[in-house]
Amino acid sequence: MPLMPVTESMFLLGESREHPLHVGGLQLFELPDGAGPDYVGELHRALLDTDDIHPLLRRRPRDPVGSLGQWMWTDDDRLDLEYHVRLSALPTPGRVRELLELVSRLHGSLLDRHRPLWEAHLVEGLRDNRFALYTKVHHALLDGVSALRLLQRSLTTDPTVRDTRPPWAAREDEPRGPRSRTGVGAVLRDIAGLGPALAKYANEVFRAQTATLPFAAPRSILNVPITGARRFAAQGWPLARVRAVGDAAGATVNDVMLAMCAGALRRYLLELDALPEKPLVAAVPMSLRTGDDSAGGNALGMILCTLATDRPDPADRLAAITESTRSDKDVYRGMSQLQVTALSAIPFAPLALGLLPGAVRLTPPGFNLMISNVPGPTEPLYWNGARMLGVYPVSIPYEGQALNITVTSYNGSLEFGLTGCRRTVPHLQRLLTHLDTELADLERAI
Amino acid sequence: MPLMPVTESMFLLGESREHPLHVGGLQLFELPDGAGPDYVGELHRALLDTDDIHPLLRRRPRDPVGSLGQWMWTDDDRLDLEYHVRLSALPTPGRVRELLELVSRLHGSLLDRHRPLWEAHLVEGLRDNRFALYTKVHHALLDGVSALRLLQRSLTTDPTVRDTRPPWAAREDEPRGPRSRTGVGAVLRDIAGLGPALAKYANEVFRAQTATLPFAAPRSILNVPITGARRFAAQGWPLARVRAVGDAAGATVNDVMLAMCAGALRRYLLELDALPEKPLVAAVPMSLRTGDDSAGGNALGMILCTLATDRPDPADRLAAITESTRSDKDVYRGMSQLQVTALSAIPFAPLALGLLPGAVRLTPPGFNLMISNVPGPTEPLYWNGARMLGVYPVSIPYEGQALNITVTSYNGSLEFGLTGCRRTVPHLQRLLTHLDTELADLERAI
Repeated sequence: MPLMPVTESMFLLGESREHPLHVGGLQLFELPDGAGPDYVGELHRALLDTDDIHPLLRRRPRDPVGSLGQWMWTDDDRLDLEYHVRLSALPTPGRVRELLELVSRLHGSLLDRHRPLWEAHLVEGLRDNRFALYTKVHHALLDGVSALRLLQRSLTTDPTVRDTRPPWAAREDEPRGPRSRTGVGAVLRDIAGLGPALAKYANEVFRAQTATLPFAAPRSILNVPITGARRFAAQGWPLARVRAVGDAAGATVNDVMLAMCAGALRRYLLELDALPEKPLVAAVPMSLRTGDDSAGGNALGMILCTLATDRPDPADRLAAITESTRSDKDVYRGMSQLQVTALSAIPFAPLALGLLPGAVRLTPPGFNLMISNVPGPTEPLYWNGARMLGVYPVSIPYEGQALNITVTSYNGSLEFGLTGCRRTVPHLQRLLTHLDTELADLERAI
Repeated sequence: MPLMPVTESMFLLGESREHPLHVGGLQLFELPDGAGPDYVGELHRALLDTDDIHPLLRRRPRDPVGSLGQWMWTDDDRLDLEYHVRLSALPTPGRVRELLELVSRLHGSLLDRHRPLWEAHLVEGLRDNRFALYTKVHHALLDGVSALRLLQRSLTTDPTVRDTRPPWAAREDEPRGPRSRTGVGAVLRDIAGLGPALAKYANEVFRAQTATLPFAAPRSILNVPITGARRFAAQGWPLARVRAVGDAAGATVNDVMLAMCAGALRRYLLELDALPEKPLVAAVPMSLRTGDDSAGGNALGMILCTLATDRPDPADRLAAITESTRSDKDVYRGMSQLQVTALSAIPFAPLALGLLPGAVRLTPPGFNLMISNVPGPTEPLYWNGARMLGVYPVSIPYEGQALNITVTSYNGSLEFGLTGCRRTVPHLQRLLTHLDTELADLERAI
């Protein structure tokens, strides 16, 4: 087994009880026609009846207790699949609310370092003929984008295919669903491989850079030390509605998504009497085309975007956000590819972000929260005949970044996953209501 | 808030991902007559509708991240009861097997140090008209005996009382159930308060002492470094059957209980081809009357007892165990009260037990596992009209002590709780079958 690259070990070293560093995904399925009452139990037993596990999901840290030296991976020769693939049930009445409560709990506990760093939880007892699969994978193994892609490996566009191949199976063939169209995750991992030293350098560049921006992130209740417990909320909205707003306002889908988040956050913070006077600033990973891109293709980076949360009018906020995402690209135009990409590594480098206790209290936030948009499959997908109704990213709040919003798309729906520190971000579910209200308000206002 | 005494802080300092230091209890209840389908859900909501929490269960470590200096407790001014009191459900078919699987998982995760160090989980979906309550409390707050007693605070012998007072309520009145008849827990905590230095001294005394015993513990698969995941198994057997065997053989209930464990362990280890040639040695907390006990009352200590696992005949094993528990008391007769009590503190002093990684690999075990018997209530008890069907202790495996057996009694039943490291003690549930077989074999043999 090779030495573990810094890009992987830093996620083990940077992890603590307060900062579990795993990413997750929640998939919602419809029970196929003719499914019996024990359908999910049978599926669980079928999934356990394999020892065909992806090599990445067989390895574990060789020295689980940790060290300041070099980490190594080793193969788990006693892989206990029953430990990794679990069956859970929802208490009555089995609404999405009970599902989100369960996922919140599951996402808040640390993965066992004595074992391969992943868990999958099949969930039964969801009403309206549905079941769910929540999967968590350590960031040292996979970033969020790759994890979402892994989840799609066992899906197909053909509803008649019956094959209980799980996402964690070893087959190396291509995913049958459409590929994610960006390489954000993979590229960021390469960059992170440059190590904490670069991240520290990048942090300094970042500070110098943001000093030239027309706005700076205010202090907010989202930018404080966090605890280990999590809250997760998720919901989807029709992409067509979002796109219609964008078309009417001359904005992108991404701009409208950011405007929904901005308006929802404004309402949420107003309710808590905690809205900063100055507008919140979001960090948004985006594909950036640089002027002198000799390598061709996309340069991937992170832009800072005002959320205009000081403005009461939704159309006004959307205009400010659209303007901001455009002009922020300009900020990066004169920078080298390395600078752009190094900047992008920051939110993925917990050591650089100051996981050391106390760091957050001293430095003002560079941004208030990260909002990512990861394109996903456009057609309906099936898992052994069970139609996937939705897929939601479950991400990582960091020290000083108590809320993460990650959005993906699936089959004409824009799927929001909100992950927050349970203590610092109370009543997270209210943000879903606010997102809904904001989309309706934008439709009226444009 | 006062400084935290060493007896409490050592359980925080000694804790790691591999060694969660909380104790638990599992209570099984019968749904009362006329309970609707949402009975457990309604009970959960009623339990949340209070802010009357026991002061012990309101406090949390002031500096959750930890320090090598002095710890302090602080009151949690934002106690989030929904976090502590949770509702879970079992997947179908909702047997005890699914319940034990859930409890195994819940017992393996660390408590959140940013909050008061306890959780209670109501469990619905248990078949045969039952529901369950699993409670976990950090050892820094309560030892296992006190935790079991706390669970009994809201129980009553009167089935007509309707009062959703939870075990964690603040009322300071006496428990309505019969008191536990030993003060083992309380006394051991006092001793532990003498601190790690004494524990280290005691460890040396202990070694010298055990050197004079006619037996020494062999190395076994139970005495290895452990991981964080747990398995829990539990079952009760009629006390009358156990007592009848004891009466016929001239042995105590405790002796027969130990013989059941011994025979079950022999079968279990034989199946795994891991039975040591020399017999296993159990550490057993017991009340010991010393010759010159000027303070009167009981001296409480720990005896080492052979489990005679080298002998194939059950009656033979019981005889050896009975002989061993008698003669072991003699070993302590010449010792001072302090020595006896200091010895008893050892299994409760994780620092002394060598939680530092690697310690276990170097030193042979003083004993192979701890088997405790904590007397419990003798009459049927009720919680808001729901009859308690059983109560089982969920204990702490330590580094080098991968299996713990704790037994309690309730309403004519001897209730076994087996807690093991999931990786080191595979197929823990088989021990339940073996315990059952052993009791039957003892009945035939005597």
